[in-house]
Amino acid sequence: MKFLLFTLFGIVQFLSLASGKSIPKNKFSHKSLKEMKEEIAGYEDVAESLINLAVYGKAKNRSYERLSYFIDTVGPRLSGSKNLDRAIEIMYKNLQQNGLDSVHLEPVKIPHWERGEESAVMLVPRLHKMAILGLGSSIGTPPEGITAEVLVVTSFDELQRRSPEAKGKIVVFNQPFVSYAITVQYRTHGAVEAAKVGALASLIRSVASFSVYSPHTGNQEYQDDVPKIPTACITVEDAEMLTRLASYGKTIVIQLKMGAKTYPDTVSFNTVAEITGDKYPDQIVLVSGHLDSWDVGQGALDDGGGSFISWEALSLIKDLGLRPKRTLRLVLWTAEEQGGIGALQYYRLHKGNISNYSLVMESDAGTFLPTGLQFSGSERARDIMKEIMGLLKHLNVTKVFTGGEGTDINFWIQAGVPGASLSNDLFKYFTFHHTYGDTMTVMNPKQMNVAAAVWSVVAYVVADLEEMLPRT
Amino acid sequence: MKFLLFTLFGIVQFLSLASGKSIPKNKFSHKSLKEMKEEIAGYEDVAESLINLAVYGKAKNRSYERLSYFIDTVGPRLSGSKNLDRAIEIMYKNLQQNGLDSVHLEPVKIPHWERGEESAVMLVPRLHKMAILGLGSSIGTPPEGITAEVLVVTSFDELQRRSPEAKGKIVVFNQPFVSYAITVQYRTHGAVEAAKVGALASLIRSVASFSVYSPHTGNQEYQDDVPKIPTACITVEDAEMLTRLASYGKTIVIQLKMGAKTYPDTVSFNTVAEITGDKYPDQIVLVSGHLDSWDVGQGALDDGGGSFISWEALSLIKDLGLRPKRTLRLVLWTAEEQGGIGALQYYRLHKGNISNYSLVMESDAGTFLPTGLQFSGSERARDIMKEIMGLLKHLNVTKVFTGGEGTDINFWIQAGVPGASLSNDLFKYFTFHHTYGDTMTVMNPKQMNVAAAVWSVVAYVVADLEEMLPRT
Ligand SMILES: [Zn+2]
Ligand SMILES: [Zn+2]
Repeated sequence: MKFLLFTLFGIVQFLSLASGKSIPKNKFSHKSLKEMKEEIAGYEDVAESLINLAVYGKAKNRSYERLSYFIDTVGPRLSGSKNLDRAIEIMYKNLQQNGLDSVHLEPVKIPHWERGEESAVMLVPRLHKMAILGLGSSIGTPPEGITAEVLVVTSFDELQRRSPEAKGKIVVFNQPFVSYAITVQYRTHGAVEAAKVGALASLIRSVASFSVYSPHTGNQEYQDDVPKIPTACITVEDAEMLTRLASYGKTIVIQLKMGAKTYPDTVSFNTVAEITGDKYPDQIVLVSGHLDSWDVGQGALDDGGGSFISWEALSLIKDLGLRPKRTLRLVLWTAEEQGGIGALQYYRLHKGNISNYSLVMESDAGTFLPTGLQFSGSERARDIMKEIMGLLKHLNVTKVFTGGEGTDINFWIQAGVPGASLSNDLFKYFTFHHTYGDTMTVMNPKQMNVAAAVWSVVAYVVADLEEMLPRT
Repeated sequence: MKFLLFTLFGIVQFLSLASGKSIPKNKFSHKSLKEMKEEIAGYEDVAESLINLAVYGKAKNRSYERLSYFIDTVGPRLSGSKNLDRAIEIMYKNLQQNGLDSVHLEPVKIPHWERGEESAVMLVPRLHKMAILGLGSSIGTPPEGITAEVLVVTSFDELQRRSPEAKGKIVVFNQPFVSYAITVQYRTHGAVEAAKVGALASLIRSVASFSVYSPHTGNQEYQDDVPKIPTACITVEDAEMLTRLASYGKTIVIQLKMGAKTYPDTVSFNTVAEITGDKYPDQIVLVSGHLDSWDVGQGALDDGGGSFISWEALSLIKDLGLRPKRTLRLVLWTAEEQGGIGALQYYRLHKGNISNYSLVMESDAGTFLPTGLQFSGSERARDIMKEIMGLLKHLNVTKVFTGGEGTDINFWIQAGVPGASLSNDLFKYFTFHHTYGDTMTVMNPKQMNVAAAVWSVVAYVVADLEEMLPRT
């Protein structure tokens, strides 16, 4: 993925993930854990106020209502689309009207890919129209489509073993769903692996925890030295059926048509707003979600929810008239789905200030009822985070898990900044992720209230502690 | 629904559901419950043998494997389609090859409706392509479609209250899912109710327990004195979004195109096979499922599973060399989805023999892990059934629930014959029912083994008891 990004922007020479300025030691927490516990205990009243406002008070259901109006009237927000432009414009106005500080847009060059018309029909052994979703950055087929015999495999290993059979065929990957991180390798690299052994196209079982004949889209990555072939996801149901038909000894022929096309890069923006810190304004706690989505569904779950609870976190803090010591910065990323394009641009622009980043937060894995916080950071930082999560005991959301990575904050995490995300029901998340079913129907106002409360308490307390979170 | 059927076949004069010959009393169980318990206890070994064969022995996974080969190679089997003809031909051969008795086809005139191309696009307040599935027997739209403003209601009551607003509009029903039996009234009668108040078309929220943007098809019923308007189901997601858009005060305009067409009735068949009874061959225990399906998905769950565990019940009994006292008759109905057309023809042809029917069984609500038997019959018959289900204690499937009705056996049940069906996870069933997701992926071989074991034990024991099940 990185290779693709670098060549896309020609910025290899600027980027050095592991570096960063030398960090003045005195910013970071030197207090004993006992001292930290005492300091954090002082936030019990503020935490209660944020929770009450978000869950029971005037702001109850606000993030859901803001989101549903936005989603229902704007729709999906694909990188390079007019809808995304409109979404950014609306959010810019929303954040200004909310009275947040330093509302501004930071320009980013982003990819513009469109899927066009697409179809797949099994012609042999019987006529069967298949649901497909072409993968982001895939090339299209010739207008008459690609009609070819099918080789079905269940793993890259099986493809290697059977590579002599792949030439001139459409390779179907029917890999089981293990976890998103593991199984998504087939979506990301399936076309390249199939092309290496001479396939004409690749069809990949959707990366899904559950399916009602639901194709899932997503990004894929070509390699410069491997021929580009068209690639799409099919449903779990069809992938399994193709495996069974092959096991009966049936010849399978599929006709694949894809009108996918990549247009020149366009200009987009990361949308930024702040509550400027009143003691250490240069120091940052970053709270974020991404505003772009795929072109199917409405991008409610991925990542309308994450964007809107991140906005809500700042709204809640502002409603209470609070201003933390360091700056709370909301960033609504653009073009996350194409590989964190907006986030990379932000990192390039701001990494000179990396020593001032206390915590980077991203909500991009669901805003259902949170079970706790996922956190990546040193043991000492984790101990502090556990104390902070203790402030959420009345919501019963106090756990601190490992994890916390996210496409848009990984640049910072890899460079040593602690990162956080919400932990919730990933089975549900990956049922709807990147499908037509990513709509407001999967969102729940009560769950969003709790998610926003957790998000705001963590963001506020970390931004207001006397010292920054320690690094390794 | 009945009104429609009657006029369709012009057979009102022949049909009298409540009648039936006078029933010679001596056939029916007169034994005390204690005597029945003793008789049923004598079947413990046979029940164990059937269970062992189905769940652990040579027949393990057989019903799943037979079904998957059939489903994968034949596909969906809509009333009036070539696929249904082919399915009947294949099943006729399968039953003959299985060596069952009296394998034959009973002709039935069935409807031939095809959906054609169909689409719905929300044009205002923003462009949004909607997933739809036209409803069986619906007329089509003109080729240019119907473009009209939308009135969204959540109930028939709301439609009545707001009837002056409906004229010239497309009525959208966003009724909540309560239960299939209750909520399906909107699918069945939505078009008629909307037409009565002057609507041009009706779009109905799919009758679904869970949705990943999944439209559900199904039958609907016009009334002779009400104008016919086109009607289709939309997704839960879109129905909810339309409700929200209306609540924001937005005008909504949808363009609906449906190429649906009804062709002249065609000839089809109920597929019948038996294990002829060796003592009371005229007496019948009927075991059944329907072979037809909707044209979306593959009709695996509805009702491939029910058909194939019904066949499996006879196969298992035959494998053990058993021949019960009365005849076990397998019927694979045709055109169930159009309102039990095949079942009505069977009832007309065979109701003269109704006094000889001990039990009518239909599996058409899932062949997942059964939780027990649903049974409709007198208290005395229920007590006997509880004893029989006790034979399934090693499978832990011993419960007898009320219920037991099914479209294809209701004619008999209404005329006093006890009826039975399997109880299982209806939430799962109505997630996939009548959708593209009704495929082999939702079927599970182990669950089908258990369902077939339960089905065969109940069928065999009732067919072999000295006396018929008592009626009211
Ligand atoms: Zn995302
Ligand atoms: Zn059915």
